[in-house]
Amino acid sequence: MSQRSPEKLKQKLVAFAKDFPFFKLIGFELVDFGPKWSTTRIECRPELNNPNGVMHGGMLATLIDAGITQAMLMTDVYQEVRDTKGSMTSVDLRVRYLRPVNRGYATCHAEITHLGRRIGHAKAVVKNDDGKEVALGDSIVIITQGSG
Amino acid sequence: MSQRSPEKLKQKLVAFAKDFPFFKLIGFELVDFGPKWSTTRIECRPELNNPNGVMHGGMLATLIDAGITQAMLMTDVYQEVRDTKGSMTSVDLRVRYLRPVNRGYATCHAEITHLGRRIGHAKAVVKNDDGKEVALGDSIVIITQGSG
Amino acid sequence: MSQRSPEKLKQKLVAFAKDFPFFKLIGFELVDFGPKWSTTRIECRPELNNPNGVMHGGMLATLIDAGITQAMLMTDVYQEVRDTKGSMTSVDLRVRYLRPVNRGYATCHAEITHLGRRIGHAKAVVKNDDGKEVALGDSIVIITQGSG
Amino acid sequence: MSQRSPEKLKQKLVAFAKDFPFFKLIGFELVDFGPKWSTTRIECRPELNNPNGVMHGGMLATLIDAGITQAMLMTDVYQEVRDTKGSMTSVDLRVRYLRPVNRGYATCHAEITHLGRRIGHAKAVVKNDDGKEVALGDSIVIITQGSG
Repeated sequence: MSQRSPEKLKQKLVAFAKDFPFFKLIGFELVDFGPKWSTTRIECRPELNNPNGVMHGGMLATLIDAGITQAMLMTDVYQEVRDTKGSMTSVDLRVRYLRPVNRGYATCHAEITHLGRRIGHAKAVVKNDDGKEVALGDSIVIITQGSG
Repeated sequence: MSQRSPEKLKQKLVAFAKDFPFFKLIGFELVDFGPKWSTTRIECRPELNNPNGVMHGGMLATLIDAGITQAMLMTDVYQEVRDTKGSMTSVDLRVRYLRPVNRGYATCHAEITHLGRRIGHAKAVVKNDDGKEVALGDSIVIITQGSG
Repeated sequence: MSQRSPEKLKQKLVAFAKDFPFFKLIGFELVDFGPKWSTTRIECRPELNNPNGVMHGGMLATLIDAGITQAMLMTDVYQEVRDTKGSMTSVDLRVRYLRPVNRGYATCHAEITHLGRRIGHAKAVVKNDDGKEVALGDSIVIITQGSG
Repeated sequence: MSQRSPEKLKQKLVAFAKDFPFFKLIGFELVDFGPKWSTTRIECRPELNNPNGVMHGGMLATLIDAGITQAMLMTDVYQEVRDTKGSMTSVDLRVRYLRPVNRGYATCHAEITHLGRRIGHAKAVVKNDDGKEVALGDSIVIITQGSG
């Protein structure tokens, strides 16, 4: 496994996210992250709303999915997968919607709760600017070590 | 309950979707729909990709969520909810990812499988242009009749 | 709503569970509980095993489902539903299996995380005797107030 | 991979299930099965009921879990896993409850919908004796080939 300075890795990931087209399209932002956790967010804006005038459920699902991925990127397991040209694939995403969000930010706290060599489990909580829970998410990730 | 011509209702819904900002942002398109079913799609384009060069899982979740909603709009239950100013809220969305999609369309076939007065269940299958399954989704919807 | 002493209600529920046939059949035990939470358990025994010699996944699902129900019984919402002859129905149960359990107890900590008048969300963690997580569960409950 | 006659394999599995202690405890019965599918059932009896007098949700979850496993046993993938002393583990079980069942049989039709070398997806429908759907289930199975 290659040696990497965590600080450099993080800087690189921050720079990457800033210009990544999909993230710009929907306004996905990194707030902070480290190995096994991330805080990310999407700002409410009319273009992301469903016809009822609240953020589309698909955007909350996207926030959770992207936040969980971000929480993976600095883990040793992910770095090893990357170095061996293996793969890490989300096989299952679940979102439970608790209340609508229509102003300020939807902020997602994601956490990798279990991380083995073959499988990882993650969870996420999305809150509004009042700190109230908007959605809960979880995901299962399958890891395949490469031979590279 | 108000009387509506299904054909007029459908035309109205088609026109609405065509100009709806969120749908334009991500390229969500109605292919066809009726009471309890819909076919909808999103075209692959680089802006919707994740860093691996395949459509972001959040976009597939969005396609499923929006497709299931579309399958609801022409049902009698939905029309009644609308007429009484009640509400219909998705409380749970689950997506299982089967294979990546990176060209052509991701096409979603959504179906309302159970629809009572308090709760609805829906499922969706997303396929690629070769007809292979890309993702499976399901959702639970809670219905509240209004008094309007 | 009828007035009940919480202590008497709890005693009554403990006595009920002790002799309840299904609980005796599988060895489901209350450890402790209160409004919105419960600790319950099932002891490993060969009769509950799957062919691999570990507790059957269905038993862990049962433990989670029964533990979540137990966490509901002392809530005000449940007492009101009961008094008005309304109903409370679990519509969705999900279990994620983390590791097998084959000795001692599977102990479930269940918690009602959100409880509105129409819908409740609950989660549960099952641990083995070493305190390691064996399974994670969650559930969605639909509440219908009666008119009784 | 060892050669097996499918008919002999099936007879062996039927004989095994008939005397398996957990199946006897809850009354789980094989109706029929083959590679990638199974029909199984549990008869309603008071001992399996919840306090509302209907079959406990945990029993329906157990029926689904066991039915899906049974649908795996005659697949080539499973036989290979078995021959190489690998393992096949259910990591996720989800059950959606549609209506209560309190008489006759709960009959489960399980199907393996996708089966790769690393992961399998399965679904199940449980019906009552009138053919009405009682519960829907799905499951994700992780496969590890052994080196034996």
